[in-house]
Amino acid sequence: MSAQTNQTIDGARLWDSLMDMARFGATPKGGVRRLTLTDIDRQGRGHFAALCEAAGLSLRVDAIGNMFARREGRDPSRLPVLMGSHLDSQPSGGKFDGALGVIAGLEVMRSLNDLGITTEAPIELVNWTDEEGSRFGHSLMGSGVWAGVYPLEKVYSLADLDGVTVKSALEDIGYAGPERAQAFPADAYFELHIEQGPILEREGKAIGIVTGAQAQVWYDAVCIGQDSHAGTTPPSARRDALVCAARIIDLVDRLMRARGEDGRGTVGQLQVLPNSRNVIPGEVRFSVEFRHPSGAEIDRLAAEFAPAAGAIAASCGVRLDLTELFRIPMQPFDAGCVALVRAAAARHGLAARDIVSGAGHDAVYVARHVPTAMIFTPCKDGLSHNEAESIEPEEARAGCQVLFDAVVARANRAL
Amino acid sequence: MSAQTNQTIDGARLWDSLMDMARFGATPKGGVRRLTLTDIDRQGRGHFAALCEAAGLSLRVDAIGNMFARREGRDPSRLPVLMGSHLDSQPSGGKFDGALGVIAGLEVMRSLNDLGITTEAPIELVNWTDEEGSRFGHSLMGSGVWAGVYPLEKVYSLADLDGVTVKSALEDIGYAGPERAQAFPADAYFELHIEQGPILEREGKAIGIVTGAQAQVWYDAVCIGQDSHAGTTPPSARRDALVCAARIIDLVDRLMRARGEDGRGTVGQLQVLPNSRNVIPGEVRFSVEFRHPSGAEIDRLAAEFAPAAGAIAASCGVRLDLTELFRIPMQPFDAGCVALVRAAAARHGLAARDIVSGAGHDAVYVARHVPTAMIFTPCKDGLSHNEAESIEPEEARAGCQVLFDAVVARANRAL
Repeated sequence: MSAQTNQTIDGARLWDSLMDMARFGATPKGGVRRLTLTDIDRQGRGHFAALCEAAGLSLRVDAIGNMFARREGRDPSRLPVLMGSHLDSQPSGGKFDGALGVIAGLEVMRSLNDLGITTEAPIELVNWTDEEGSRFGHSLMGSGVWAGVYPLEKVYSLADLDGVTVKSALEDIGYAGPERAQAFPADAYFELHIEQGPILEREGKAIGIVTGAQAQVWYDAVCIGQDSHAGTTPPSARRDALVCAARIIDLVDRLMRARGEDGRGTVGQLQVLPNSRNVIPGEVRFSVEFRHPSGAEIDRLAAEFAPAAGAIAASCGVRLDLTELFRIPMQPFDAGCVALVRAAAARHGLAARDIVSGAGHDAVYVARHVPTAMIFTPCKDGLSHNEAESIEPEEARAGCQVLFDAVVARANRAL
Repeated sequence: MSAQTNQTIDGARLWDSLMDMARFGATPKGGVRRLTLTDIDRQGRGHFAALCEAAGLSLRVDAIGNMFARREGRDPSRLPVLMGSHLDSQPSGGKFDGALGVIAGLEVMRSLNDLGITTEAPIELVNWTDEEGSRFGHSLMGSGVWAGVYPLEKVYSLADLDGVTVKSALEDIGYAGPERAQAFPADAYFELHIEQGPILEREGKAIGIVTGAQAQVWYDAVCIGQDSHAGTTPPSARRDALVCAARIIDLVDRLMRARGEDGRGTVGQLQVLPNSRNVIPGEVRFSVEFRHPSGAEIDRLAAEFAPAAGAIAASCGVRLDLTELFRIPMQPFDAGCVALVRAAAARHGLAARDIVSGAGHDAVYVARHVPTAMIFTPCKDGLSHNEAESIEPEEARAGCQVLFDAVVARANRAL
């Protein structure tokens, strides 16, 4: 173990490579707009592929455009250890969401080369296609197809706002690869990602040891009242869909806060009809989602929310149509992989804490087939999906070092 | 007085004329789309002008397109008694909002002709330009310019969504008239209009004796929080602009209901940014308005609302920018004119009640210069600004009869 402490990655090279990648789709405000399967994405992928080739890695591309860059191990019979994340961004995204995990993986490969290390197992670095879902409305697309969550043919036919399908976009940029897009046997998967939340920064921790991903339940809600004249309709005759929605939004917030700091409850999207100053709204459509580390708590939230929202609607004289879109259980990560992350943080004296991922990540789908863990690093003010997203070079270095240690330890473990 | 009871208008002719006017801009759903100063409006105005000419009326048009159709009285020294409303409609409007008051005025003129009556004072029937404000974003335009509330040159330069100005639209349809658009001396103004609310129908009243128009206060509100990831941002770190707006919407409703059936409080328009399912809203912009028959109560509402909304925002960690757009006092109608309406309803045995107008009407601006009253008639389910707007022929007849009686009594009063 003392030997491994001397195996350090090159923090400066990592940072330079992150800044290089951020040139592809750079925005005037210092962010990145690298929408999946666009020409900007093609250029970024090409840049990444060239760096992989320069590092001696062999590249495969599968039918959904996922890229796998492989470094052979000593024992050809061993299953590969995977690591990676995604290079696509939000429309007004930052430099680090996704890119950190991919470029840090590249730095792991380069450091292994520099240190002259041949691991027992092969290592593969993955760039998953379309994690963000901004263009085709379907997040975790590449890892979801790979994991068998989404049928390939269905995903192929998804179209963007211009009517361009996933299939033709893949072909246009030359990334409809020959490999089958499906899970293959692998020994482990590690993903480094910025936290996209404020917890690590607030507590002064360098590393989040991600033990799993939150359980979630998502709804579409429609309140249907009666639009009428704001000046002439007395209180007793009002069936105001927006007042009803407002009280349900308040309910979502109160149900969240009743769970303490682990609760999440959000109405992010809302539309008012007819949306005219002096017309009482007749219809309001909105999204509702709850998340919690405990699947049982999500079940309790769902059991509490629907009847409480229905009672609010009834008291407003409004009809509520509530559609549960999906409910996903908590996805625990692999205890052995998580232990390797914890050990790596401790070895390098990095302040760390266990954390449950609140966001969706490719790792959540990969974990259905492969023992998985994630590493979180802080981001300034918890900001992400924002051009102002910002991290410090030292934070990137620490995360990359933990990724290196965990991946190498896993690849060299005694079977 | 017994003589006048025999002076009845022709309900069948009135209804036929209403249906004839509804052909101009008729929609498949049975409504009307007759936006101000469009070619459809030109056709409707032309139809109306021809009917006025056939009834022996002389027509003047002023610089904002207001039409005045005059029937001379016996005494050339007397000021005219005005009556009227508007022929323009909402984009998805009904057959009666506005048109009832104009066509009923025409029926008054025709009945006077049939009955061979020459009133002491002249009578003028008005079609006010652009009451609805749907096209140029400025309601009560024609009456507002006439009353000196809006400068003509400023109104001329208003443009619709296609960039067409009021001035060029007036010229295009040939209704930039030679008369000065400003208040001239008149003895009285009477306007018949559907209630656009449910009160008369609910109470089984045929006639609303409108004693005045509500006081109002209007606001623009902007809640500025921080957009952040719905999955990763714990309750303690949230500054959710939509939760803040929701609690202010609830406040508006509660403040309204604390005033009983006379209160009005509405948030009709609301926009969420960035409006993405899994992003906590960082900004919400919305309208707020209160109305009440008492101006003093509106002042109390305003004094209560702003600090209470501010306290909600502070408790949500959200900044609230609240802009008071305008505060208008209660506009009382003229006691003498109102008494004529009340007497007419009683004379014909029509169930009536006093009512305060919740909507804005041309009469509210005319009342600043001329003794004014309004007559309301019921509409089905209180629905207006809607293609389903509906009234019964008998309801139109009763309203027109009251208009006839009030106008003739005023025009023949002893000076």
